[in-house]
Amino acid sequence: MSNLSVTLEDVKNAQDFLKGSIDRTPLRMSRSFSSDVYLKCENLQKTGSFKIRGALNRIRFLTEEEKQKGVIAASAGNHAQGVALGAKIYGVKATIVMPETAPLVKVQATKNYGAHVILHGDYYDHAYQKARELANKEGLIFIHPYQDAKIIAGQGTIGLEIFEDLPQVDQIVVPIGGGGVIGGISFIAKTLNPKCEVIGVVSDQTPGLMNMKEGTKVTPASTVNTIADGIAVKTPSPEMFENYINKYVDHIVSVSDNEIAEAIVTLMEKDKVVTEGSGAAATAAMLTGKIKPKGKTVIFLSGGNIDMNTLNVVVETGLRRKGRLTRISVIVNDLPGSLARLTAIMAQNKANVLDVHHDRVSSELSVRETRIDFLLETASFDHARELIQNLKNSGIRILQGEL
Amino acid sequence: MSNLSVTLEDVKNAQDFLKGSIDRTPLRMSRSFSSDVYLKCENLQKTGSFKIRGALNRIRFLTEEEKQKGVIAASAGNHAQGVALGAKIYGVKATIVMPETAPLVKVQATKNYGAHVILHGDYYDHAYQKARELANKEGLIFIHPYQDAKIIAGQGTIGLEIFEDLPQVDQIVVPIGGGGVIGGISFIAKTLNPKCEVIGVVSDQTPGLMNMKEGTKVTPASTVNTIADGIAVKTPSPEMFENYINKYVDHIVSVSDNEIAEAIVTLMEKDKVVTEGSGAAATAAMLTGKIKPKGKTVIFLSGGNIDMNTLNVVVETGLRRKGRLTRISVIVNDLPGSLARLTAIMAQNKANVLDVHHDRVSSELSVRETRIDFLLETASFDHARELIQNLKNSGIRILQGEL
Repeated sequence: MSNLSVTLEDVKNAQDFLKGSIDRTPLRMSRSFSSDVYLKCENLQKTGSFKIRGALNRIRFLTEEEKQKGVIAASAGNHAQGVALGAKIYGVKATIVMPETAPLVKVQATKNYGAHVILHGDYYDHAYQKARELANKEGLIFIHPYQDAKIIAGQGTIGLEIFEDLPQVDQIVVPIGGGGVIGGISFIAKTLNPKCEVIGVVSDQTPGLMNMKEGTKVTPASTVNTIADGIAVKTPSPEMFENYINKYVDHIVSVSDNEIAEAIVTLMEKDKVVTEGSGAAATAAMLTGKIKPKGKTVIFLSGGNIDMNTLNVVVETGLRRKGRLTRISVIVNDLPGSLARLTAIMAQNKANVLDVHHDRVSSELSVRETRIDFLLETASFDHARELIQNLKNSGIRILQGEL
Repeated sequence: MSNLSVTLEDVKNAQDFLKGSIDRTPLRMSRSFSSDVYLKCENLQKTGSFKIRGALNRIRFLTEEEKQKGVIAASAGNHAQGVALGAKIYGVKATIVMPETAPLVKVQATKNYGAHVILHGDYYDHAYQKARELANKEGLIFIHPYQDAKIIAGQGTIGLEIFEDLPQVDQIVVPIGGGGVIGGISFIAKTLNPKCEVIGVVSDQTPGLMNMKEGTKVTPASTVNTIADGIAVKTPSPEMFENYINKYVDHIVSVSDNEIAEAIVTLMEKDKVVTEGSGAAATAAMLTGKIKPKGKTVIFLSGGNIDMNTLNVVVETGLRRKGRLTRISVIVNDLPGSLARLTAIMAQNKANVLDVHHDRVSSELSVRETRIDFLLETASFDHARELIQNLKNSGIRILQGEL
């Protein structure tokens, strides 16, 4: 028996222990799907993600001597905050190594929980190496983000809550990074009802565990730049695969950043909740139809710690993909009244002008011509197409109507 | 006894009736305040706001004959969706008059509930007049958004839920538009515990009820342009004042659009929920310190129906006010390398460049000079000030550092 194994008893025991320290997050009927689809909202959990569950459950098993030494972890975000708060609750000293590129807000939040934060390297891997080094050198207890039975048992409590609130659950959709949370949830699901399907969702930039599941070649991702940073694990763990993913997960699909952006916007607009990139990955897989609703389906929203500047870009991307933001470029003669004529047509078509940019030096222009780029608020792709047609009908030369 | 009066029995009866048709929304501990502050999340309610409560309670009292005739309402958003869904549940025909300026998304949502939508006029007042006319002409039953005892009793069920979840509540903070929801909540609060304080929050652009409460002059607002459109009631109702606000509300404060924008961002960032302008007004009053926490305080989040394009602007405003977006304009010689030198200093100071704009024709420039405007992501006002100082120390001519 591997040291990664957990039992139902371990998870129930973790649940009893966590009561009072963490929030019982709601399982809410989704407003984005017509059928029986529910959202398990761990974005509403303390620290903004589920990570506090595993971290607290890990720290409680430290010996007195280990508690004296203190803990150390590497993370760009959610695990950092989980370990920091977990350590604070136990009065244990915590050191968190974060990459220098970590969002300022997450660094601040981790510091606010009283942790000592060290910024090191450009990527998580650098921070991880540094944390391992420091753990050895200073005798600190390293808290792994997922490859740890106590962590997995802690995350498994989410599975127990889902079954308490919805005993008839038929399908659970969970984002996969290292595999800790889907490990815990899928173990519980298959233990309580072997017929309940558990489906994983990876970022298409880090498909390692999906490749392993499908038996295809695994090439470790090189440069990864995804908004789903919480599940961007470059090299999948064979131990997590053998002990959990291979045994308990039915299959795995992948989603792109654009699909995730659209899901984040849908969750904000319809369900009024904020999710981070990885937190919306499972929703993205459902919205795109890569996973079909099946009986009673639970979508796991893993976290909500999205940087507000990132959110701004995401909202724009999401709106563009829904036909609600449209870019149109036209070429007009550089004469008074050209803009007035264009904007009058746009107003008639009830398209709201958000931004206008003039360009007189593009290579496609002759001397007395101007290119004008519009950013427009439109109702839908159909609305945008209708507007473009009406502009053309009025003799306007459309250079580009990005739909 | 005025026909606007309700009894505790009316509200309890409404609560029994509404069960199953509406959601029991959570009362969540807020993560934006250090003390005992809770959020009553009606932004998570069906239709995205509390309005469905009053609308359903109103429609159930229609006679069979009235149901045959159908209902009509005027609204730019939440009342529209509440009446549309309420009518749908009862199989009653609904006509909703919305101003032509209503956000496309809200028009679409109202249509999706099966209502017949008429777009009329630029403002709510025009839509209201039109709806009244149509009600008379076609014999439709007009559903008033607040001045109606059945509506008030429906909204009062929120008060019952607050006391069920938090019997020791000491203070409830509620945004005020027409006064329907604060009427219902304050009536319940004072009936169940006369010591529980109820405080109202208006937009500073529509301070009518606050003026009445303070006994100062009431000038009907003329042109109103606020993100808190849900509470932008130009002319306060003397009946609502006499029957509810004057009797049960302790006092009223006002908030600005900028304060609301900051509150929307805080609620997204810390509490992971999306609110619309009026939905965040009570939070804004607490964040600015205009209302102090007192024992156990409940903040009422009235709705979450914010247009995503508006949200984008709001997030930028909120970030700017938190020192997290900074605009800096500098003047440099128009030579190769000028931009590289500037951006190197910004990189050293860990300020992330989001946008750059060059201007060579401003009146303040001599011929070989360029003005460069930067939009930067910064950690705080202190961080921005430090950066500006470092730029100055490097001999950069700062035209403007907007803090």
